[in-house]
Amino acid sequence: MKREDVFNFAAGPSAMPRSVLEKAAAELLNYRGTGMSVMEMSHRSAAFREIFDTAKASLRELLNVPDSHEILLLQGGATLQFAAIGMNLLAGGAADYAVTGRFSARAAEEAKKYGTVRIAADTSSTGHDRIPKQDELSLSPNAKYFYYCANNTIYGTEWHYDPETACPLVCDMSSDILTRPVDFSRFALVYAGAQKNMAPAGLTVVIVDRSLVGGELPCTPEIMSYKVMAETDSMLNTPPCWCIYMLSLMLDWVRENGGVAGMDERKRERAALLYDVLDSSRLYLPHARREDRSFMNVTFSTGKKELDAEFVAGAAQRGLLSVKGHKVTGGMRASLYNAMPLEGARKLADYMREFEAEHV
Amino acid sequence: MKREDVFNFAAGPSAMPRSVLEKAAAELLNYRGTGMSVMEMSHRSAAFREIFDTAKASLRELLNVPDSHEILLLQGGATLQFAAIGMNLLAGGAADYAVTGRFSARAAEEAKKYGTVRIAADTSSTGHDRIPKQDELSLSPNAKYFYYCANNTIYGTEWHYDPETACPLVCDMSSDILTRPVDFSRFALVYAGAQKNMAPAGLTVVIVDRSLVGGELPCTPEIMSYKVMAETDSMLNTPPCWCIYMLSLMLDWVRENGGVAGMDERKRERAALLYDVLDSSRLYLPHARREDRSFMNVTFSTGKKELDAEFVAGAAQRGLLSVKGHKVTGGMRASLYNAMPLEGARKLADYMREFEAEHV
Repeated sequence: MKREDVFNFAAGPSAMPRSVLEKAAAELLNYRGTGMSVMEMSHRSAAFREIFDTAKASLRELLNVPDSHEILLLQGGATLQFAAIGMNLLAGGAADYAVTGRFSARAAEEAKKYGTVRIAADTSSTGHDRIPKQDELSLSPNAKYFYYCANNTIYGTEWHYDPETACPLVCDMSSDILTRPVDFSRFALVYAGAQKNMAPAGLTVVIVDRSLVGGELPCTPEIMSYKVMAETDSMLNTPPCWCIYMLSLMLDWVRENGGVAGMDERKRERAALLYDVLDSSRLYLPHARREDRSFMNVTFSTGKKELDAEFVAGAAQRGLLSVKGHKVTGGMRASLYNAMPLEGARKLADYMREFEAEHV
Repeated sequence: MKREDVFNFAAGPSAMPRSVLEKAAAELLNYRGTGMSVMEMSHRSAAFREIFDTAKASLRELLNVPDSHEILLLQGGATLQFAAIGMNLLAGGAADYAVTGRFSARAAEEAKKYGTVRIAADTSSTGHDRIPKQDELSLSPNAKYFYYCANNTIYGTEWHYDPETACPLVCDMSSDILTRPVDFSRFALVYAGAQKNMAPAGLTVVIVDRSLVGGELPCTPEIMSYKVMAETDSMLNTPPCWCIYMLSLMLDWVRENGGVAGMDERKRERAALLYDVLDSSRLYLPHARREDRSFMNVTFSTGKKELDAEFVAGAAQRGLLSVKGHKVTGGMRASLYNAMPLEGARKLADYMREFEAEHV
């Protein structure tokens, strides 16, 4: 298949802008006159240092991260953060966890190794089809933080408010970072696996309140100590250099396309195209409740396994790739991260309507 | 600078073969007709699965890894392995560590969090200029493993024998994996950060005896459990896909160039070019003792800081980049990993002779 005939709706790793990839390909053998690829450069070289500093500065600018918070560029994905948060911030105390999907459930389970985990909400009884409302949250008086996952990729739900709590917030923004403004003053820590809106898989961005680091458990590996990683500017060891370079190119692209405000506007347009089809459909069953549905992942099914499979196969024939739902929900899922062009969502919406006309 | 005018002697990340980078650039926007970049692919897709399986199979074939050992493709570098080895294999018991450089010292220090670390040898009193001989090793009767770092990148020393011990070996082969044959039956675990001989930074290869996993401490993060990562075939979460793709291309290149035997032969030729200059020099002082010197990192100085700086600057003018020594040793270091062409070593040897002629 030609690249121009394909729209990639994968849930992560996921589509990147063509212009970003073209720049990476053009510079791959010789990065800006250094005579070498970014993949070959010492992470202590001046050329890589500039890439690293630029990526951090762009994140700080685009996300409006205050000086109170350190930006760390780490490895290990969300899964390593589940433990790191427990080791560094829970550290024998108690915290509230909202379980609204698979990743928040895993985060809560992992944190139990390092302290007391209280479940502030659990939406599993209705298949994680919704986000709890503020007055449903069961908050503990002595919680060190309140943990939640802002967007549940598998289920297609998203928190459209920041919970009001006495303690600071800790949030997994893997799916929706750089798609909306964030008031970091309320957050002890925000983290995101890069492979949805930021960079190739292998990089994790952590934004942590400097005043809260340093109390980690004795069993904490040096490289998982937020204090050590802040002190070494994420370079205790060799960072994932290529991913950080791709992040810097992606952030340039975000800036050129209106920054976070531009991304916020475009995500609404994209998602509306698909939700409009679902809202007027007699064939498709949306998974998420209307008020809690995600701008990033649109989840639905026909209610019939064979028909879902036919939908997915027909989509692939048109170059609309990776719209199969996660195995725990079945059905379909269209992921619409920042790099998905409006045209991709439009083509998928057209196909959904055609498919419905043929099958109702 | 043009790529063809540059030889990159960086200690890691380090040079990669031009043909490998050309292939990556050519496939970057559209991997083999999938219509997408490897950076955009779902790690659960058939196309990425094939890349992953091919990389693992190539490692097994080229390194002759027996079925008793699992190959894991992880994140976090050697630094995360320092702790993972402690959590999984030390796990409250005792082990012997040979400290022959900075990385083995850090590994020993980190492991103390998870059990009893006994120092079997320590070469710091002579500036880590040598490798202890077999009869110098102080071995404990109840050690669960003997830990060593096969090649000390900073100091330019390399173990030219595998220690004889009652317990199995654990070895950091970050600098010399794929440069020599290894008898894995003697090893509980071998690991290597990929950024020297295998792939861009952000990937760690772990080869572990399956019969020894599963006894990890309760504080072990799920993603650091060798048992869990073996059971999930390194896909508990999203792996560093681009690095694994680059690994697969690098391993194809190793195979096309004679496999490990071919690499072993070429490393000797490359290193001999530089050591011949050192051995007949009246200017250069080698850091490592002759019998323990590394095939990978050639370390030397003039004994004068200003002259060392002049050497490094003159080298850079000729496109011989990153020959400055590590800050703890000073002087010069030329790293000669698998991708360094013989011509690079020859040009550096020529420059060393010219520089000496001008300064003696």
